[in-house]
Amino acid sequence: MADAEAKERRILVAVDEGEESMYALSWCLKNLICESSKDTLILLYVKPPRVVYTALDGTGRRGYSEGYMFSSDIITTMEKYSNDVAGCVIEKAKTLCRDLQNVKVETKVEHGDPRDVICEMTGKLGADMLVMGSHGYGLIKRAFLGSVSNHCAQNASCPVLIVKRPKSTAGSN
Amino acid sequence: MADAEAKERRILVAVDEGEESMYALSWCLKNLICESSKDTLILLYVKPPRVVYTALDGTGRRGYSEGYMFSSDIITTMEKYSNDVAGCVIEKAKTLCRDLQNVKVETKVEHGDPRDVICEMTGKLGADMLVMGSHGYGLIKRAFLGSVSNHCAQNASCPVLIVKRPKSTAGSN
Repeated sequence: MADAEAKERRILVAVDEGEESMYALSWCLKNLICESSKDTLILLYVKPPRVVYTALDGTGRRGYSEGYMFSSDIITTMEKYSNDVAGCVIEKAKTLCRDLQNVKVETKVEHGDPRDVICEMTGKLGADMLVMGSHGYGLIKRAFLGSVSNHCAQNASCPVLIVKRPKSTAGSN
Repeated sequence: MADAEAKERRILVAVDEGEESMYALSWCLKNLICESSKDTLILLYVKPPRVVYTALDGTGRRGYSEGYMFSSDIITTMEKYSNDVAGCVIEKAKTLCRDLQNVKVETKVEHGDPRDVICEMTGKLGADMLVMGSHGYGLIKRAFLGSVSNHCAQNASCPVLIVKRPKSTAGSN
């Protein structure tokens, strides 16, 4: 017991484009990570599920996905946008970690329903702890998906640390 | 950032009579507490709300509480039982912490609705983190109260670490 300084912990942090997840990461760096330990920090970003489509073709059949119709141009643009956002989020998260000396930082981008993917990845990546913001995965997605953090607290294969951004810091990072 | 080894963290662990909360405490000792840090560990047990009553008296009026009638003997017995359980739980939790060298261990027994009391105490005790089992506060109470951990994750004044007991360890501590 009490051997945290000797233990190699794999800490998975779910990040997204919202400020709350960056606050959770900052809090984790400040309060959990021991430079003296051999922690590995894994930054996970989950892109929205890929759109399944068939491009507009000469037969007049059109691609449908979740009730919407997309031309291949729009699909391409959406995929590019989604990749750009992923890149942005991961870069921002890595920047927050730039001062870490002994801690290994890994990044991982997946796609799918964040609730399922995050829980799945705790097992696949052998995480000892999952850290996430309480508002989980962006305002818009949350409206459709419900609370990601509640779901993960019940279904992840490791303990889950839910970091709620204090009201006083809202508006800043 | 990454100055956890220098920081004095106040870690509040909500314990109850269930094995899951003891698992959460053990996990915390193993994975969070750094002997090299100046952490303070606060063990909190919340007793069920005190029964409000007027004793049976010569006028034939009887004490009512939440629809039940109690004689003063039963009340006294219940209060004693509740205190005994509190003592037991705190002792068991302290035993788990006995090997800590540099970490200060404090204990706190409160009474009331655990959901409210735990959230309140995170603020009052200046906790930097709250650790609790995911099944929160015993099977019977949970049936009436709903998920204590979900409530605390949303309402505590600090980040909340929810530790779910792995299925493989069920039945042992």
